[in-house]
Amino acid sequence: MRHFVLTLTYDGTQYAGFQIQKDASTIQGVLEKTLRDILKRKVRTLSSGRTDAGVHALSHIVSFKAKTRMSQNALKKALNALLPQDIAVTRITEAPLSFHPRFEAMKKRYRYTIRNHSARSPFDRFYTVFYPYPLNVRAMRKAARQLQGQHDFKAFQAKDKKERSSVRHIHRLTIQKKSPYLTIDIEGNGFLYKMVRNIVGTLLEVGNGRRSPEEIKTLLARKNRALTGPTVPAKGLCLLKVVHPPF
Amino acid sequence: MRHFVLTLTYDGTQYAGFQIQKDASTIQGVLEKTLRDILKRKVRTLSSGRTDAGVHALSHIVSFKAKTRMSQNALKKALNALLPQDIAVTRITEAPLSFHPRFEAMKKRYRYTIRNHSARSPFDRFYTVFYPYPLNVRAMRKAARQLQGQHDFKAFQAKDKKERSSVRHIHRLTIQKKSPYLTIDIEGNGFLYKMVRNIVGTLLEVGNGRRSPEEIKTLLARKNRALTGPTVPAKGLCLLKVVHPPF
Repeated sequence: MRHFVLTLTYDGTQYAGFQIQKDASTIQGVLEKTLRDILKRKVRTLSSGRTDAGVHALSHIVSFKAKTRMSQNALKKALNALLPQDIAVTRITEAPLSFHPRFEAMKKRYRYTIRNHSARSPFDRFYTVFYPYPLNVRAMRKAARQLQGQHDFKAFQAKDKKERSSVRHIHRLTIQKKSPYLTIDIEGNGFLYKMVRNIVGTLLEVGNGRRSPEEIKTLLARKNRALTGPTVPAKGLCLLKVVHPPF
Repeated sequence: MRHFVLTLTYDGTQYAGFQIQKDASTIQGVLEKTLRDILKRKVRTLSSGRTDAGVHALSHIVSFKAKTRMSQNALKKALNALLPQDIAVTRITEAPLSFHPRFEAMKKRYRYTIRNHSARSPFDRFYTVFYPYPLNVRAMRKAARQLQGQHDFKAFQAKDKKERSSVRHIHRLTIQKKSPYLTIDIEGNGFLYKMVRNIVGTLLEVGNGRRSPEEIKTLLARKNRALTGPTVPAKGLCLLKVVHPPF
């Protein structure tokens, strides 16, 4: 038995998210079907995490165990030949059987991209959110600094999902203005359900002056999702990287 | 009567080309329908030229005459609010009634983008052509230099279309390697039907070693479309700019 580890990149526009579902098209569903076609048996995949409907990925880590003599390269080529054009495998390697892409994920990096320009563009319509109003980047950065570090992020967790602990560590939260785009990169040891999109929605309200940067501390302390900003659309979000210890 | 000049940008993926057709969705058809909805009367548009099915544009010039008191800005806003997400107006201005965007076009610039990398990417699948094999850029540039200047480009004209003259002037033909992309920019005083895509197909055959750069001179002299390279796919092509004299 071998344990393959794939790095997947995908355009999430057409999918109901990563995780397999009975009655919807998902990245995991398409991948497992393609692996079954190649390996001629049912394959179960493990993932570094889920992404929501419409969210994209540059590097999503997925693993599966299989008895096969195929070389890594042959398997990668077969996958890229058979997967739809909106999913691709950029890397394939092997890990010990004990490896688990989710439990061993040390950190993840996400990017949220805003088109901050007066005119929309047809070419980034699936990958950015159009926001044609002025944004105070300095205020947003000030707010972002207060979110860095270890905090209870309950105020930014989707109301309907509860995990054992809502304490997470944000290692970096940086905002770059590269006209016409504003990109918000968040790296942390893990993220609660919709946490990134709720943080971005709150940062946008700081950027447009509806909130002050200083408010963030209070929001964290109050732990109340009703007080933080809206969940921004999925299409602006991309999973950039998942970091594992070397195996 | 006023004469409005629009700069359009569009993702051509979903369209049967620019020019209006009875039974197909076209950029011009969608634009004229939207203008009729805004101005409450039939509007005929003039264009700087056609683009084929699947070809994109960053700046396509379109003009129309209308009796209206709407400001340029209000008209632009109305268009961008009502046009589908894959078409946008980036600029609006006015010209004398005598202006014609095609007859007065002095030069046009096109870009053809090749993904020249071992792995495909979901994110550029509609805007590039995937070519995972090595390309000799130096040989391609040598071939490109022989295409610059004034020539009879009959050898690169689609067989089924004939124009009065197939003589055109290519002002610039440059090839840039910016991994993972190879871009070919062509600027000229006008282009024959499928001329850009036939030139790119021939340059690719120089790049992969099937032809020598020196062959180009002979191909131009022989004026035979059967001897030049294949027409590359439309999706890699984008109309970058149309230049008019100031009006």
